[in-house]
Amino acid sequence: MPLNRQIMLASYPVGMPQESDFRLEESPLPHAGPGEALIRTLYLSVDPYMRSRITGQTTYAKGTQIGELMTGGVVGQVVESNDPRISVGDIVTGTLGWQDYSTAIAKSLRKVDPEQAPISTALYVLGMPGLTAYFGLLDVCRPQPGETVVVSSAAGGVGSLVGQIARLKRCRAVGIAGSDEKIDFITQTLGFDSGFNYKKVTDYGARLKELCPNGVDVYFDNVGGEISDAVMPHLNTRARVGVCGQISQYNVENPEPGPRWFGQLILRQARVEGFLVPQFSDRYAEGLRHLSSWLREGKIQYREDIVEGLDKAPQAFIGMLSGRNIGKQLVKVAEWHRPATTVAEHLVGQALSLANPEH
Amino acid sequence: MPLNRQIMLASYPVGMPQESDFRLEESPLPHAGPGEALIRTLYLSVDPYMRSRITGQTTYAKGTQIGELMTGGVVGQVVESNDPRISVGDIVTGTLGWQDYSTAIAKSLRKVDPEQAPISTALYVLGMPGLTAYFGLLDVCRPQPGETVVVSSAAGGVGSLVGQIARLKRCRAVGIAGSDEKIDFITQTLGFDSGFNYKKVTDYGARLKELCPNGVDVYFDNVGGEISDAVMPHLNTRARVGVCGQISQYNVENPEPGPRWFGQLILRQARVEGFLVPQFSDRYAEGLRHLSSWLREGKIQYREDIVEGLDKAPQAFIGMLSGRNIGKQLVKVAEWHRPATTVAEHLVGQALSLANPEH
Repeated sequence: MPLNRQIMLASYPVGMPQESDFRLEESPLPHAGPGEALIRTLYLSVDPYMRSRITGQTTYAKGTQIGELMTGGVVGQVVESNDPRISVGDIVTGTLGWQDYSTAIAKSLRKVDPEQAPISTALYVLGMPGLTAYFGLLDVCRPQPGETVVVSSAAGGVGSLVGQIARLKRCRAVGIAGSDEKIDFITQTLGFDSGFNYKKVTDYGARLKELCPNGVDVYFDNVGGEISDAVMPHLNTRARVGVCGQISQYNVENPEPGPRWFGQLILRQARVEGFLVPQFSDRYAEGLRHLSSWLREGKIQYREDIVEGLDKAPQAFIGMLSGRNIGKQLVKVAEWHRPATTVAEHLVGQALSLANPEH
Repeated sequence: MPLNRQIMLASYPVGMPQESDFRLEESPLPHAGPGEALIRTLYLSVDPYMRSRITGQTTYAKGTQIGELMTGGVVGQVVESNDPRISVGDIVTGTLGWQDYSTAIAKSLRKVDPEQAPISTALYVLGMPGLTAYFGLLDVCRPQPGETVVVSSAAGGVGSLVGQIARLKRCRAVGIAGSDEKIDFITQTLGFDSGFNYKKVTDYGARLKELCPNGVDVYFDNVGGEISDAVMPHLNTRARVGVCGQISQYNVENPEPGPRWFGQLILRQARVEGFLVPQFSDRYAEGLRHLSSWLREGKIQYREDIVEGLDKAPQAFIGMLSGRNIGKQLVKVAEWHRPATTVAEHLVGQALSLANPEH
């Protein structure tokens, strides 16, 4: 009988998480209950927000307790189903566990079409990070053509999309990231107008002034701390700051105080707004429609940083928090071999629709 | 030949302004140029925003330089006019000087109807502070019935109106002010639901928790600093903070850092927005229409703190910055005797409009 490997939280991390804060356990393979499906994990996503879920405190969602399974976004394949809407063999995505096999209420899963894009994109461009970039930039920050958009953590999962969507909206996109390689990536591959490596620049403010000669209209913040402190004085009148993440602060044991910004917000008539992507959940279909068009048309480029093996998930998570990844950090848990029949069916389907465009 | 007394800026204040930072000068009476009117000052307004205009730095508006006339809101009577739209004897309001007589382009002045309300209200409920409370609360903070609205500097010009408008919108209004007398005033006279004297309370957070058992949905901030620091952790999901003023910070030579709030804004999906009332200038007529209805119907109470004499303007300004006033701080510069003819004309006008409602 196969066993299910699971990554459990062993202790609440103090500061930056350590591998010893996690523990691999093995348990019997679960089975799908009524209305449930059993999913074999193919990829799992490690994301900055997860750090705030393992603090022992309740924030916007109940956190993971010690001894409990780590949870996160998963793309997997259905191996059992007790719901007629989901079939064995389907590729699905949902918030499942850091484990080989998860059970879930079938209707909580979203089907992924392997013909549309690589299935791993359901955890990135066509998943939570994509929707976060889409709604966070367009709805929270409302960029206008010709405006300057500054993005922190610009080579990360969300940031790399924010800059590209800003460009699609005819804005100037300026990225801040932590290595020359990341800056090359965002400017040369992703089409950001410019950017700087904050680890090599001492006076962030002076560099921002050079790169944003017309000031900053939108700041999409993934990091907080000193980088945000440096951006704030460059905000233009009626600027908008969308606060998506504060990765610089998540692993700080005793947060340092910072400058008080309220007075500057008055002078600039500016707005700072925190958001969480579920607040846009009734519009996910709209977001995915735009993101998949852009992806299909080659208007959005992406890069994945894939670690292989479920047992490497803690290491991938820690690496992501330390900024070691370029592009979206994923963990590949199992190989997916697309069934030959699916390919054949797809080709038949294509032939039919070519023969009869009304089909 | 009469002389024009003028209060000039003698030095940029360091910290809290001193009377020696101002100087009274006398100059010949000016005359109205082409398109201008000459206005005799009756009341002038001292407001917190003026502190940021005498720092020697340019902020959202050019500041007053050393040796220049102090400027501010004035209600006065027209004594000369070179514009047919303004007549001698009219009561007008505008941004004029701390002086007995000012000249101004006539079309920059707004006529005040002495029959509608006491003329001093053009500097308060029916003037800039009223419009600031109206648009700042309703447009920036968007309170919904049943929500809890916290107001700092609640007994001041703007704050005292914000709480009353919040009540009119069926919100719970909680005020923070600096004396027991002010708290009595806002709760007993103005109808705030509750409030506390921050000078007598050591644990602001605990007191807020008692007074806002359902959390804070809207925080209308006039003060900043430690009071705002105490309110922020009580914000509810999707809370809105309207930043109107930061009076606690204006006179601080070396601003202290404070807690970093961006992370909390994410968890609460909350928004902090700074504003200046001129951003609503194309809707002033709408605001004044509502404010004057509420005033006429007795739905808004107000209290003025009036100092007599132009030479007392610096003292009134400093007192206001120190929180010594309850209600709107004004300076009465000259007595206005309503001309008997005006009363007679008004009665005739009323009789006509009663006789012919189409009139």
